[in-house]
Amino acid sequence: MKEYEAIEGGVTAPKGYRAAGVQAGIKYPKPDMAMLLSDKPAVVAGTFTRNKIQGAHVKLCRERLIARKAQAIVVNSGCANACVGPQGLQDAMKMAKIAASSLNIDEKLVFVCSTGTIGIPMPMDKIEKGIVDAAKVLSVDGGTAAARAIMTTDTVDKQFAVECKISGVSVRIGGMAKGAGMIEPNMATMLAFMTTDAAVEPKSLQTCLSDAVAESFNRISIDGDQSCNDTVLFMANGAAGNKMLDSNDPEWSIFCDAVHVVAKELALKIVRDGEGATKFVTVTVSGAVSKTQARMAARAIANSLLVKTSWFGGDPNWGRIIDAVGYSGAEVIEDQVNISFDQLMVVKGGRKSPDIAIKDLESVIARKSFEIDVNLNLGKGRDTVYTCDCSVDYVKINAEYMT
Amino acid sequence: MKEYEAIEGGVTAPKGYRAAGVQAGIKYPKPDMAMLLSDKPAVVAGTFTRNKIQGAHVKLCRERLIARKAQAIVVNSGCANACVGPQGLQDAMKMAKIAASSLNIDEKLVFVCSTGTIGIPMPMDKIEKGIVDAAKVLSVDGGTAAARAIMTTDTVDKQFAVECKISGVSVRIGGMAKGAGMIEPNMATMLAFMTTDAAVEPKSLQTCLSDAVAESFNRISIDGDQSCNDTVLFMANGAAGNKMLDSNDPEWSIFCDAVHVVAKELALKIVRDGEGATKFVTVTVSGAVSKTQARMAARAIANSLLVKTSWFGGDPNWGRIIDAVGYSGAEVIEDQVNISFDQLMVVKGGRKSPDIAIKDLESVIARKSFEIDVNLNLGKGRDTVYTCDCSVDYVKINAEYMT
Repeated sequence: MKEYEAIEGGVTAPKGYRAAGVQAGIKYPKPDMAMLLSDKPAVVAGTFTRNKIQGAHVKLCRERLIARKAQAIVVNSGCANACVGPQGLQDAMKMAKIAASSLNIDEKLVFVCSTGTIGIPMPMDKIEKGIVDAAKVLSVDGGTAAARAIMTTDTVDKQFAVECKISGVSVRIGGMAKGAGMIEPNMATMLAFMTTDAAVEPKSLQTCLSDAVAESFNRISIDGDQSCNDTVLFMANGAAGNKMLDSNDPEWSIFCDAVHVVAKELALKIVRDGEGATKFVTVTVSGAVSKTQARMAARAIANSLLVKTSWFGGDPNWGRIIDAVGYSGAEVIEDQVNISFDQLMVVKGGRKSPDIAIKDLESVIARKSFEIDVNLNLGKGRDTVYTCDCSVDYVKINAEYMT
Repeated sequence: MKEYEAIEGGVTAPKGYRAAGVQAGIKYPKPDMAMLLSDKPAVVAGTFTRNKIQGAHVKLCRERLIARKAQAIVVNSGCANACVGPQGLQDAMKMAKIAASSLNIDEKLVFVCSTGTIGIPMPMDKIEKGIVDAAKVLSVDGGTAAARAIMTTDTVDKQFAVECKISGVSVRIGGMAKGAGMIEPNMATMLAFMTTDAAVEPKSLQTCLSDAVAESFNRISIDGDQSCNDTVLFMANGAAGNKMLDSNDPEWSIFCDAVHVVAKELALKIVRDGEGATKFVTVTVSGAVSKTQARMAARAIANSLLVKTSWFGGDPNWGRIIDAVGYSGAEVIEDQVNISFDQLMVVKGGRKSPDIAIKDLESVIARKSFEIDVNLNLGKGRDTVYTCDCSVDYVKINAEYMT
């Protein structure tokens, strides 16, 4: 049973949060500076990219996460603050310091994130002005402005929120995220920020977030390129007034389910807004020898340029799908493989079923959203990846997103 | 010292070979059936895809390769004869049988290859007619016609040949190959056929070919998709009249160098004619902890959609390159990384060198061919991958290459 309800809003839907999004001028005239503030210090959890090259903010956030306390998050878009030498960390720390001073809170409680072009030093004059300006306009209605200010090539802002009851107390969870390229489910995500007004024990919050990320942001792929700045942060400020929740609580799963649904909705919004994407595709591999192998096969399909371009072209090219499974590293026996497009089983036992007409498959692939199911019929391993097609516009966007 | 000389022609440049390319009608009006015949039985070596899904011809060729003897190779384009169930192998065997009967040679000496769309049963009426027709027009001038008949999305035929001297005897090596998509250096290649008139001991021929493939066809990448039909076959018929060569011969390396250069030229021709490619890029990673790690990093760069689209856009986006190295799995320490574009060192110690102007990098990336060198400065591992950009036309070609 679904024990949560979708509600309006994003990071400021839970009690005790204010947000803002302003123009710092980094990518004028678009907004490029977001701020999120909890009225009081909150417990915080986080997950980060596994890329060995990491943006400066990842280093700062990892360090500050040790204390598991946060009150504010400052995010700029337009400049990744990555691969700029020691200046990067200094600038990230300076961002936190400016924010702390503008908000009159402890500097250690400020987390910082950056997204944008790699290798460009931060324009600190603009950044400083942006932070000061953002602090002035924080409001409970500022969630959308913040969600817009973290966008890079995203075409729409991404927010979601739910409400559930924990021991009779209404608890809310909200979030915002940004994509839309350099996205591959190999730990963490682009940028996503989640909030809750529940009181949650710190380690339990981290477990809850890590599990949710594994089933959401780590299940999506747009282009197979894993960013060096991927970060998810989740604040829990206790403003709802519930008794402190932890993972031993009988109602823990209600809370976690609600967190999962927020993370998953945000993740799916990222895929739906993938750079140049015209189609949303759910790829499920079942019957693999293990879950890991199911994921390897699902990812190979989701990241195959030939598969993605065939989707864009409206071509139900199952040959490219079975080919991708073949090189994925997963165990596969050709004459055991079944492949379905939205329940139409086009491949049975490794070859085309005579009962399925190509025109029926073409009508599936013409849909804005469809499912590819591959059953390897070798074991019980199963996994799903959410992805999109690769269009002419993807190439154009990325050929034109200049250094 | 270079002990070989480039000569005109391809598979029929060495003595004792005839070839043909005709229209079987599979992809009318283009030629789609090639045949290659050695006047007498030859020693044969081969390498094949490591994809776990394999075309029917791969199974047949692997089986026949055990005897290491071949006299003819029949190749059709337009239909991959893959994922069609047991009928696939039956059809491949029938192709060999028809060829043997047309040529009046032992059926076991006929090798078969297919390339084209996966999952479509072979149109055996057309195939039979094509084989019979090809056998009638075999000639020493038929190398180009054969090279054209094996093309799929290739825009030009790919041939190369060299001559060298072994113990005073002139020996020739020739070859033809086809790309142009579904290409990733993870063992073997698309289709390539090489011939020599040297007499070579069978196991030594296989070693020579395997080594050459490792440094040529396995060093290229167009889209990261590894085909299920990749095959390289190499026949040695002894028509040159040299004393039987083997790997203990003092002149063995002369022969092998000549084979390497033919394989490499064919491989580079495939990349230059990559689907939609506008730029040829040599990616070298040095200073890695091991050669394997150097290759992982070079491949991650070569297969990154974001890197490839930036090249297409004329954007010297080194940030995407260092990002790809970061997720490649290779050990990397950010402040040790140097990156050069055609000797211009844009990144030194993990960040942009102030001495390099973006416009100078832009002029490098505007070239039809350029080199990216990444030095990780951690060890002695070094490897090179040859690749191309990803253009709007790549997506169009693959969106329109219908099932």
